[in-house]
Parts: sequence; C-alpha cells; structure tokens
Amino acid sequence: MILSDPGKELTVRAEHACCGGHVGFYSHASRTLGLEAHFAVFMPAGATQARRAPVIHLLAGLTCTEETFLIKSNVIRFAARHGIALVATDTSPRGAGVPGEDESYDLGTGAGFYLDATRAPWNAHYRMGSYVAEELPELTQRLFALDGTRRGIMGHSMGGHGALVHALRAPQAWKSVSAFAPIVHPAVVPWGEKAFSTYLGQDRSAWARHDATLLLEAGHTHPTTILIDQGDADQFLQTQLRPDLFSNAAARAGQALRLRHHKGYDHSYWFIQSFIEDHITHHAAILTA
Amino acid sequence: MILSDPGKELTVRAEHACCGGHVGFYSHASRTLGLEAHFAVFMPAGATQARRAPVIHLLAGLTCTEETFLIKSNVIRFAARHGIALVATDTSPRGAGVPGEDESYDLGTGAGFYLDATRAPWNAHYRMGSYVAEELPELTQRLFALDGTRRGIMGHSMGGHGALVHALRAPQAWKSVSAFAPIVHPAVVPWGEKAFSTYLGQDRSAWARHDATLLLEAGHTHPTTILIDQGDADQFLQTQLRPDLFSNAAARAGQALRLRHHKGYDHSYWFIQSFIEDHITHHAAILTA
Repeated sequence: MILSDPGKELTVRAEHACCGGHVGFYSHASRTLGLEAHFAVFMPAGATQARRAPVIHLLAGLTCTEETFLIKSNVIRFAARHGIALVATDTSPRGAGVPGEDESYDLGTGAGFYLDATRAPWNAHYRMGSYVAEELPELTQRLFALDGTRRGIMGHSMGGHGALVHALRAPQAWKSVSAFAPIVHPAVVPWGEKAFSTYLGQDRSAWARHDATLLLEAGHTHPTTILIDQGDADQFLQTQLRPDLFSNAAARAGQALRLRHHKGYDHSYWFIQSFIEDHITHHAAILTA
Repeated sequence: MILSDPGKELTVRAEHACCGGHVGFYSHASRTLGLEAHFAVFMPAGATQARRAPVIHLLAGLTCTEETFLIKSNVIRFAARHGIALVATDTSPRGAGVPGEDESYDLGTGAGFYLDATRAPWNAHYRMGSYVAEELPELTQRLFALDGTRRGIMGHSMGGHGALVHALRAPQAWKSVSAFAPIVHPAVVPWGEKAFSTYLGQDRSAWARHDATLLLEAGHTHPTTILIDQGDADQFLQTQLRPDLFSNAAARAGQALRLRHHKGYDHSYWFIQSFIEDHITHHAAILTA
C-alpha cells in the first residue's frame, strides 16, 4: 500500500484488504510532535503513482484514536465507491508526559484540539495544528499514491472544529470541508474554554484563529459550500456545539453553508453512519469533478 | 423502541437513532445464564405490533461483545434498507466467577461458543446454547416488534460456528443462515478442542451436536443455501477454520452451499464490512420474500 518508503520512515502496524482497497495503520517519528505518532490510510483500488487518488482527511472527536472514525462511521465503503483515499489522524500526541494529561477526557491525551499549544509545558509536544496542516499531508502524499491538489477535510465534534478551522484558514489546501456535530465556537463553550486556556493561555485574542466562528467574523471564508450535519437530540448541542452561532456568522460573512438538523439523532457514531454517504458525495462532487 | 415491558424485564442502557430506525442496548436477568446478560437490538423504521419486522440474530467472535458486530460491520444500513431488525448477542456470560475464565482470549469470558457447558463448574452459567436458541428469541419477540416466524442467523468466526450449528439443529426456527470465516469443524481444530474439552469433557461423542460439519454428517441439513464468505489471507484459515471440510461434508449431504473465497482478505471486520451487503441481501431474499 505504501508507494515507496526509501527512508523507512513508516512502521507498518497492520494492513487489511477492505472494500476492494486497503486500510493500513502506521506509526512514524513525528518531527512536529517530537514523538512517535500513529495514523491510518485507506487507499482505494487502482490508485498508483501515475494515477493518484483524491483524499479526505478525517479528524475524530474527544477520546478517539486514528482507528475510530474509520471503523465506526462506515466511511470506507463510500470512499471506495468514489475512488477516494482517506487519511485518519490521531486526536493528540501520545505519551507527551505532561502532568495531568491523562486526568480528564477533554484535555490532554485524546483531546489535542488540532492546534499548536503555546503555553509550557504543553507546547513541547501538543502541536497537532502543524501536524494536521503540514507534516501529515506532506508525509502521506510523499509515501502514498495521493493527489495533494485534491484534498478535503472532515471531522466529528472536536474533529469538526478542527476541520472547519483548518479549511477556513487554508482553503487552497483543503478543497472541500464537512463536519458532524462540530464545536463551531470553542471560545464560548466549556470544552473550548478549558482547552484554549490550558493550551493557549488566558489572552482570548490568541484564541481567535482557532475558532471557526471567529474566523468567519475575521473575514476567512471557504469557496465551497460547507456541509454540517447535526442531531437535534445531541446531548452536547446547547452546551458545547451551538451550530446556530456558526450559521449566523456564515450568513453575515456570505459563507455558503448547508446545515442540516436531524430529528432524534444524538452525538454518536450511530448518527455519523446514518449520514456519512452524503458527506462523501459532497466531497466527491468537489474532489473528483 | 421496546414494544411493551410490563414486567420491567429490561434495563435500557442506551438507545440511539440510526439509519432511520433505532439501535438499543439492554440488560436483563437471564434465567438461562443465572446472571445479568447484555444484548442489543436494531429496529428499522416502521416496525409496529401490527407490522412486525423479520429479524437476523448476529453472533460475534472471540473477545467481542454485543456491540462489536453492530458497530464494526456496517450491517445496520443494509438491514434498515430491507426493513430487517437485528438482535446482537454477547459472546459469553459475564461475571460467572469460574476460576480461569478471564485467563485466555479463547476460553471463558468472551468465548462461550454458543453452547451449554455440561462440566462443572462451567455448567452453572456457561449456557449460551439455550440462551441463543430459546431465551433470547422468546424475550425479544415478546418485547419488540419482531416476527419470530421470519428469523435468520449470521455470525463471524466463533459466531459463524454458532450460526451454522444452531441453524442446522433447528432449521424451522432459523429460516436463513450465513457466516463470515466460521469455525466449521471445531472438534478437529485447537480453538474448538480447547473449548469443547473444557465445557463438554473428553468424550468426543458429546461434541458432535456442537460441530457443523459433524451435524451435516449426521444428516442435519438446512433447506436453504448456506452463504459463507472466507478470506484467503485469513491468518486462521488453515489452523482453525477449514471451510473445505464443511464444503466436502455439504457436498456429501446434498446441502446447498455458496462458499466464496476472497483474495487478500483477512479475519477482521474490515473483511466483514466489505461483504456484509451480500449477506443481508441473502437473508432478505428468504425472510422478506
């Protein structure tokens, strides 16, 4: 599945045939994180050096790993159908050794929020922002048959926050974007306030570039329609997610947004697997046009 | 999702909207196991007391729980499409307190082999055979909108063994049957020899009714075609699974069998999710005809 790895950068943890292609689990010494990092790749049938596949990066939510989105969302069968590859990221550095990093589910291990911490001691390793924006795309495009000019991003909850923020900051890098139940305005909800004050400090002006709603308000937009699915029985809807705030900002910014509310659906992967097909169709319309 | 539970037999652990229907996780005091038991149910949209849904029982493999097959196989989307319900069984009693039951992955907890143990101390609680054949179908049909006259069974690995054995022993109860990478002849492979000698004792004549290949040889058949998918890169193919032994016995018994070998696929749920749609189509053709 690896196109070439002359420098032996990757350790292959497992590879499995799946839906006509292959899903593989890898680790590598990340220069950005300063630690061994895990990620996973699904390559559809037929991708080669000469015929590279478009790719969607998957960002999962709190407590997840690089495996969660791939195994629980049903995403692979639809990516395979469209000849789209997938790159699944871990949710934080592992083993950074920061005191307290394993004490709560919403901070530290499993909760990297896809940003670069600036406060010590977190800033030594908690640098998932640069990892997602730079190192992982560069590494995977070099070693796998991926077409980096056709790259989308999708996430759930904390990963939805990550997908929106990265796409709004670098729309030329991320050609398509969608999210399930994203944290759209972390600066004003408990999960985000806890993470941002810890990783970035109390100066809220430093938070703005890590908040999708504030990015819209600052003039960042994405040239495509953003697709967001949200369950109306989501237990975190009013306290942590608040898609209405993003929707209002998008209207003011002229950002095309398709926000769908789904009656009775909650925050789980049972929700995601119910609507994942539409997300792949959304990305495919842009990436395989 | 529960049709009625006047005796308050069930504890609802969680219920989630999924693919237009609902998936729920329940526990109850099992009289067969003498312990609290877990199971899960997917009910498709539109099933009511007056319009009951056909149902497929799912049996998972070693180390799994009642959640594994549902979340990792992609099965729900296809069951929903055909209006078919699913009942997912746990793989063993939990907390039976038998010395050694937690020491190995292939015996005891997570490894009940869907049979009734006859040897002490296992026989006090390890009675998954009667639980799958009698208590769980009776309970779920009484409390959910299921049509017990249209009931199929499907499993993976140890659960494939369970599905084949239960369907061959009671073809009038289980109208359709399929398996992924089943243990087809446990009496002659290490997993089965370890489990059978522990649960049933050394007298191999007592093993025959728990072995799908021996059941075929004893004259048990199923009136429908049995569908089996097997990966040819399955790490357990030659040591534990041996579908060729079942295929030979089926030919001698006149049992219709569709055994498909898949190049490059292994024993994992990545394999199952690649071919699950065909299994639901197979069951639907019988159960919804």
